[in-house]
Amino acid sequence: MKNFIYQNPVKILFGKGQIARLQAEVPKGSKVMMTYGGGSIFKNGVYNQVTEALKGFQVVEFGGIEPNPQYETLMQAVLVAREQRVDFLLAVGGGSVIDGTKFIAAAIPFEGEPWDILAKGARVRSAVKLGAVLTLPATGSEMNSNAVVTNATLHRKLAFASPFVYPVFSVLDPEVTYSLPKRQVANGLVDSFVHVMEQYMTIPGDAPLNDRLSESILKTLIELTPVALSDSPDYENRANLMWSSTMALNGLIGLGVPNDWATHGIGHELTALHGIDHAVTLAIVLPGLLRVMKDQKRVKLLQYGERIWGVSEGSEEERIEKSIQLTEDFFRSTGILTRLSEHNVGMDTINEIFNRFNAPGARRLGELGNIDAEKIKQILLTRL
Amino acid sequence: MKNFIYQNPVKILFGKGQIARLQAEVPKGSKVMMTYGGGSIFKNGVYNQVTEALKGFQVVEFGGIEPNPQYETLMQAVLVAREQRVDFLLAVGGGSVIDGTKFIAAAIPFEGEPWDILAKGARVRSAVKLGAVLTLPATGSEMNSNAVVTNATLHRKLAFASPFVYPVFSVLDPEVTYSLPKRQVANGLVDSFVHVMEQYMTIPGDAPLNDRLSESILKTLIELTPVALSDSPDYENRANLMWSSTMALNGLIGLGVPNDWATHGIGHELTALHGIDHAVTLAIVLPGLLRVMKDQKRVKLLQYGERIWGVSEGSEEERIEKSIQLTEDFFRSTGILTRLSEHNVGMDTINEIFNRFNAPGARRLGELGNIDAEKIKQILLTRL
Repeated sequence: MKNFIYQNPVKILFGKGQIARLQAEVPKGSKVMMTYGGGSIFKNGVYNQVTEALKGFQVVEFGGIEPNPQYETLMQAVLVAREQRVDFLLAVGGGSVIDGTKFIAAAIPFEGEPWDILAKGARVRSAVKLGAVLTLPATGSEMNSNAVVTNATLHRKLAFASPFVYPVFSVLDPEVTYSLPKRQVANGLVDSFVHVMEQYMTIPGDAPLNDRLSESILKTLIELTPVALSDSPDYENRANLMWSSTMALNGLIGLGVPNDWATHGIGHELTALHGIDHAVTLAIVLPGLLRVMKDQKRVKLLQYGERIWGVSEGSEEERIEKSIQLTEDFFRSTGILTRLSEHNVGMDTINEIFNRFNAPGARRLGELGNIDAEKIKQILLTRL
Repeated sequence: MKNFIYQNPVKILFGKGQIARLQAEVPKGSKVMMTYGGGSIFKNGVYNQVTEALKGFQVVEFGGIEPNPQYETLMQAVLVAREQRVDFLLAVGGGSVIDGTKFIAAAIPFEGEPWDILAKGARVRSAVKLGAVLTLPATGSEMNSNAVVTNATLHRKLAFASPFVYPVFSVLDPEVTYSLPKRQVANGLVDSFVHVMEQYMTIPGDAPLNDRLSESILKTLIELTPVALSDSPDYENRANLMWSSTMALNGLIGLGVPNDWATHGIGHELTALHGIDHAVTLAIVLPGLLRVMKDQKRVKLLQYGERIWGVSEGSEEERIEKSIQLTEDFFRSTGILTRLSEHNVGMDTINEIFNRFNAPGARRLGELGNIDAEKIKQILLTRL
């Protein structure tokens, strides 16, 4: 195990009816900006529950935050928040709304051009406090300090992290997920699964506990999938799904071990260039990444195959290939299309992504920082 | 899954050389009371590392906190801290020192008789801030808000919990555990194991993720034991042991599921009456508790047997009995004696404990609150 420092201050309010607790959790006397997305919260009753719980607070609403939240939209919110002297942000939505709200929180007091937070890694020295009401289990944003923002003009998707943007609290009520479209549930399942893989499927980390914690989440997600995608999800299913997706990216399972994140690095480019759903890009990239990097990840791939999929027969090569195929089969079982060609993406895009990672100063990806433009091209070529 | 609220603010500084970070973590200008136990920190170099890292701070030392920290001793520390106007406490030791320091922290500003915090559940409304340098992986006290204190005069061992006594930070350096006597390592392993069992071995909780997280810790502890108790423990072994014991009782695995804690409730009485090591009392009680409560815990006992010990053949009764026996065998493999008679404890003590739990207003134990004096006697009778 490697040295690590960990502190996660997020207060989790989990379960039925917890939205009502907002009244007590939002700091007294706050002027609140309530942020949300495309309006699903008006259909599923969440908007009403939240406004009821915020009675007595001054509330400014800012809706219309997109999936893959856009810099341009978020900057509008920043201007409104500054003008209205908002002092608390309440994100009501999924990962995109929460990520976007984290950026708004950091940008409001930022001196200079907020785009630098994303593009130049400019240091965040403060942020407006925020809370979250989660409506879509997927990204873990409700319990971490990361955010990803897209610049539509530049076709770039960039991340930042700061301890100042941990939500003060997050409300996780599994009941609000009943009305989610299956496509979003599928995306959440796959997103959470790949979050675990990014922190687990690496060179060995001498961390048997972390390995097992990660495997616990993977196995649970697989087990939950059929009912989660059925026509009648039940409370226990959605509760376990919600907590699994939070645990997949609240930082814990990645402590003291190598982290990969190359699948995300490559996937972000597919979203930036083609607007493909984030989780779908992960499902496209991961099988290719595992094949191209299989020597480096051999020990863990064999462990993963045996512990997650029960693959214990055949040569090492056969077991690895079978485990990767089962992973892709699992993704496809959720209805997600895992091939670039199925999304009308071809060589032009692969070449564009190659060029981005081949530019002077471009970063290399992976737990050893050895996934360069050439390897990324190889990975994508296997996914046509 | 049941509703829950969770927030764990402890900053964990994990790994080699992290004690040096105290310099930056202890609030600037603090007058620090450094608390410790019987003096092992003078032999293993921890005292020197800590005092080196505290250069520039005013430091008051308070040593001599016992295993099963005693109220009388802790109240001496409270008087010194009040007199010296100490404003930060640094616990350097194992769970007893950290638990004791939590009590000191709460007692310093407490108006009235601090014993009431333990005996009457008097509310803790503030506490002096504290940090910890962990020297013995076992209790999880370094990342939770609980403490257990013994009143030697009254032969009582009582617990309290308050969000005010979460350590601000805890330093977990696995290297400081190399010099631990095997008996303490064994105690730590068994203590951690039973902490998990208290949060896992209950009626079913519809929480497959939590179940697997708990099983992850159990399996890892079992796997780590032979090397942990060998003559040459290595860093990776001790690092994983340290993190496993913290994860066993930082609150996470018990979220949203039934919790038992009857083994602790009964074990505390054995420590209070006979001074038997805490972990040893747990190893004595648990096999009896599992047998007496096996109908209630049947589903989980069968799951535990199969997933932890690979017990999958025979009737349900046979599988349950085999799993309990393997659990006791595991405890004994660490050198711990698991029978009351091996500690010269007999019917007198069983009757005394029966009387305590049979007194008017005495609490009942277990996840359903149905373990009464009669059942406790039954449990102990199987352990003679």
